Amino acid sequence: MKKIMNQAADFVQETLQGIVAAYPDKLRLSEKDGRVLLSNYPRKPGKVGIVTGGGSGHLPVFLGYVGDGMVDGCAVGNVFASPSYQTMAETIRACDDGAGVLCLYGNYGGDKMNFNQACEDVEFDDIPTRSVRGCDDVASAPKGEEEKRRGVAGIVYAYKTAGAAAKRGMDLDEVARVAQKTVENTRTMGVATSACIVPEVGKPTFSIADDEMEIGMGIHGEPGIEVRKMMSADETAQLVMDRILADMPLACGQKVSVMINGLGATPLEELFIVYRKVAGILDQQGVSIVMPHIGEFATSMEMAGFSVTVCLLDEELEELLREPAITPFYTNLNK
Amino acid sequence: MKKIMNQAADFVQETLQGIVAAYPDKLRLSEKDGRVLLSNYPRKPGKVGIVTGGGSGHLPVFLGYVGDGMVDGCAVGNVFASPSYQTMAETIRACDDGAGVLCLYGNYGGDKMNFNQACEDVEFDDIPTRSVRGCDDVASAPKGEEEKRRGVAGIVYAYKTAGAAAKRGMDLDEVARVAQKTVENTRTMGVATSACIVPEVGKPTFSIADDEMEIGMGIHGEPGIEVRKMMSADETAQLVMDRILADMPLACGQKVSVMINGLGATPLEELFIVYRKVAGILDQQGVSIVMPHIGEFATSMEMAGFSVTVCLLDEELEELLREPAITPFYTNLNK
Repeated sequence: MKKIMNQAADFVQETLQGIVAAYPDKLRLSEKDGRVLLSNYPRKPGKVGIVTGGGSGHLPVFLGYVGDGMVDGCAVGNVFASPSYQTMAETIRACDDGAGVLCLYGNYGGDKMNFNQACEDVEFDDIPTRSVRGCDDVASAPKGEEEKRRGVAGIVYAYKTAGAAAKRGMDLDEVARVAQKTVENTRTMGVATSACIVPEVGKPTFSIADDEMEIGMGIHGEPGIEVRKMMSADETAQLVMDRILADMPLACGQKVSVMINGLGATPLEELFIVYRKVAGILDQQGVSIVMPHIGEFATSMEMAGFSVTVCLLDEELEELLREPAITPFYTNLNK
Repeated sequence: MKKIMNQAADFVQETLQGIVAAYPDKLRLSEKDGRVLLSNYPRKPGKVGIVTGGGSGHLPVFLGYVGDGMVDGCAVGNVFASPSYQTMAETIRACDDGAGVLCLYGNYGGDKMNFNQACEDVEFDDIPTRSVRGCDDVASAPKGEEEKRRGVAGIVYAYKTAGAAAKRGMDLDEVARVAQKTVENTRTMGVATSACIVPEVGKPTFSIADDEMEIGMGIHGEPGIEVRKMMSADETAQLVMDRILADMPLACGQKVSVMINGLGATPLEELFIVYRKVAGILDQQGVSIVMPHIGEFATSMEMAGFSVTVCLLDEELEELLREPAITPFYTNLNK
């Protein structure tokens, strides 16, 4: 197993130690719970708090979006495992500034169960909460069953718009409305050409032949919808966009943001080759692209492959997307 | 071969098309030469121009540093191949604003020969030039033969400091002096756990056993100084730092910046585990770290592994490092 690590059991803790050592003025771990990562960026009193959480192994998701204008705190689980509800409750308490807290996270069973429990827990502290779950992966459940879909890279758009809404001073219901609208306007599909290795398991999460790619797999190695012989970048991009556009048809004149997300091992050069095709497909439909995001935003450790996310923008979402945000792992200033 | 691409011969051109499609307001290709990438960021008249260039396959190096406060233009070669001297000369001409041009690039035979020819060429246009070559890879030649060393990730520090110097309005000799000082203060060493695949070759650049790592390899797969059985992250970081510190001893109270650079396929989590150890080693010596850079800054496509760069800062270099810079691929605002 070719992991750059020490003991597998220390993987997450040592990653967190490295992160807070690197950015001590930007991020800190809660003194009460070493799995709660909090923002040190200054924020206006009375802002709605936004928290997220989930398993490790997806950097920059989830904790990489803790910063200014996005998320205020993150509950950090083990690799591919939900954080405990106690950790989530502590994150919520640490991020409440009197205006309540939005829990914004990916749609996975464990995370949902634990965040629900955490929200009940903090009722005793009189902290109002709302929950919005990212469910952008079109390959994970058919149209009409969106509430069953997994959350993948598209949640970054919800962090961005909800984060800007909270920074503007919108109240909890409004911030939750913006997050929910963003989730409903976002679709993602991915392809993988190799699997990843969970440190404590020590072998690949799935196997795939040397000349094949998995279409529609999840970011934990969940099976996709089909296995195909390797296709060209253009063919692959077309396949992914066909599926996304069938699920969320776009009309001439509409605006979207597009994310081409590397899953971990795919060269940045190749992501731009994919972007070139995706931009061409949208241009042909008369759809314009605002602030494309090309790079690694939600990974699966050393998995090779990419995902494409399309986020449909109305005037409100475009404004919120464009507002500056900064974290140690993300800025939209150069997009 | 699991590359996300179309025809191998189109790899670089399609990457460039994707990049300028993504950032049309930030970057453009020269109308005279489609391999010359230029900045659209506004700049003060009379600024010293800074150009770079080199083979493709290392994003964000080299072209990713074209922007505001770093590099003004980049000559783009094929994968792992030097651009032509004509492309370099065109880049220099496009970036001259009357104050001359610094050519700042990695120390490779082809690049050196072609940049020298290009500098001779633009003498006919009365453009004064200076050349500074990055040669930070301590594994590539022994101490005392620094001029034979390869340039790797450490050149990013020279882009940053020289870019800030030029933006401040320093003249050509001063900008070259800052770049040269940065190069002389910078050391890098890398380790690889897997090779990369050049698109037109279609097979890995070198082979390495499932339980081994290559110490000190180059970013084109040049052989390293030894092959070792896989070590822990801490042992590997110690080995690399021992070599760097033997080459450039540091004293208590000195300041450095540190870059933990992923070579392409290594998870960000693992880079922070390495940073944790490197920061501990420096802390023990009483050396403090300014603006650590952890992520992918100079890759070798899908190569797995990482490099560590240490850049020794004096007061001038620290100030120049801290001045804001922004490109579509880099910002130091969140470091």
